[in-house]
Amino acid sequence: MTQGYFISFEGGEGAGKSTQIRRLAERLEAAGHDVVVTREPGGSPGAEAIRELLVNGAADRWSPVTETLLMYAARRDHVERVIRPALAQGQIVLCDRFADSTRAYQGAGGDAPASLIAALEDHVLGGTVPNLTLILDLPAETGLKRAEARGGAARFESKGLAFHQRLRAGYLEIARREPERCVVIDADAELDRVTAAIAEAVAQRLDLR
Amino acid sequence: MTQGYFISFEGGEGAGKSTQIRRLAERLEAAGHDVVVTREPGGSPGAEAIRELLVNGAADRWSPVTETLLMYAARRDHVERVIRPALAQGQIVLCDRFADSTRAYQGAGGDAPASLIAALEDHVLGGTVPNLTLILDLPAETGLKRAEARGGAARFESKGLAFHQRLRAGYLEIARREPERCVVIDADAELDRVTAAIAEAVAQRLDLR
Repeated sequence: MTQGYFISFEGGEGAGKSTQIRRLAERLEAAGHDVVVTREPGGSPGAEAIRELLVNGAADRWSPVTETLLMYAARRDHVERVIRPALAQGQIVLCDRFADSTRAYQGAGGDAPASLIAALEDHVLGGTVPNLTLILDLPAETGLKRAEARGGAARFESKGLAFHQRLRAGYLEIARREPERCVVIDADAELDRVTAAIAEAVAQRLDLR
Repeated sequence: MTQGYFISFEGGEGAGKSTQIRRLAERLEAAGHDVVVTREPGGSPGAEAIRELLVNGAADRWSPVTETLLMYAARRDHVERVIRPALAQGQIVLCDRFADSTRAYQGAGGDAPASLIAALEDHVLGGTVPNLTLILDLPAETGLKRAEARGGAARFESKGLAFHQRLRAGYLEIARREPERCVVIDADAELDRVTAAIAEAVAQRLDLR
C-alpha cells in the first residue's frame, strides 16, 4: 500500500509561503511526483465556507477560543475530504498552514488555552500530522511590511505588531520542541536562497527518489 | 452579587420547544422576572453566522465531528457574549437547545466520539451549564410528522427516522445519567398539560419567588 508525504508550510504574514510552495511543487512535479497543493483555513468546499467567517470582519470578531474551534472545524473537513484521500493515493500534499498555525495564532498569539488546542489535536486530527513542517521565519516587522505592500488588509494582519511577535516566538518554540518534524527556514533572505534551503530540507528529511 | 438561572430546552424535531419557551417566558415575566429567550445554534451575531452553515445544505454536508466543532464554535460565542453576561446580571436565560443537543444529535445520532464531546464540554463551556434542562420527549415518528406539517425541510429533519430514534434514546440516556439537572417532560400530550408540567418542574427545581 502506498502512502504519500504530508508537508506543511508555516510562518507569519509575508513570509513568502505561497511562492515557495509553488516552487517546491514545480520541482517535485518535474521529478515525476504527484503533488497536491492546498491551504488552510480552507482547502475543501466546506472549509472554504468556514474560511470566509475567519478571514473577514473585525480583528475581535471571534474570541481566541471560538476562532480555535472554527479553525478545527475547517481542518477536520479538509483532512477528511482532501488530505487523507490524497495521502492514501500516495500523493505529496503541500499545505499552506496546518495545526501549528492554531498553536501560534490562537495559542501563542491569542491566548487560547494550550490544553484546549492539545485536546483538539488528539481528538480531531486522528493521527494525520505532517511528515515535515517548514517554518518560514523572519522578523515580524519585515513580514508585516511585505504583507502590507502586497495589499489587502486581512483580518489577521490587522492584529498589530505585538501579536505578530508572539506569533513568531510561538513558531520557534514549536520547532524547538519538535525538531524531528520541524525545520526553521530563514525567510529573511533572497528568494532563491530560501528555495534552496527548502529543497535541502526536503531532500534530507524525506525519502523521495 | 446576583446570579441568574439558566434553563435549557431539549428534544427532537417537532417537540414543541418554541411554544413552551414562549409560554414559560410570559409566565416568568408576569411574575416580575427578567427573562432572556435565546437559541442554539445561534443566539449571538457570530453564532447566527455559523448557524447558516449548519442548518442549510445537504444532510451529509458535514461529518459528525466537523459538525460538533462548528456547534461548539457557535456555542462558545453565544456563551461568552449572551449567556454569561445575562446570568451575571441576574437574568433568567431560556435557551432553545444547548450542549445536550450536541450529545444527542452529533453523538447518539451521528456517532461523533463521546470523548471528543466530553473534552469540548470541559474546555469550552468553562462551567456555564444549565441549572435545569427540560427534555421534551415524544416518539420520533410523531415529532417528524409535526415538523413536516409546519413546513420547511431543515437539514436535520432530512436525516431519516433511524437517526431521530437514536436521538430520542440519546436524550433519555442523558436524563437517566443526570437526574439532578434534567427533567423529562411528556411532549406527546395536549399543549396545556405540557405547559403545566414545565411550570411544575421549574417551581420544584428552582428557587424563584
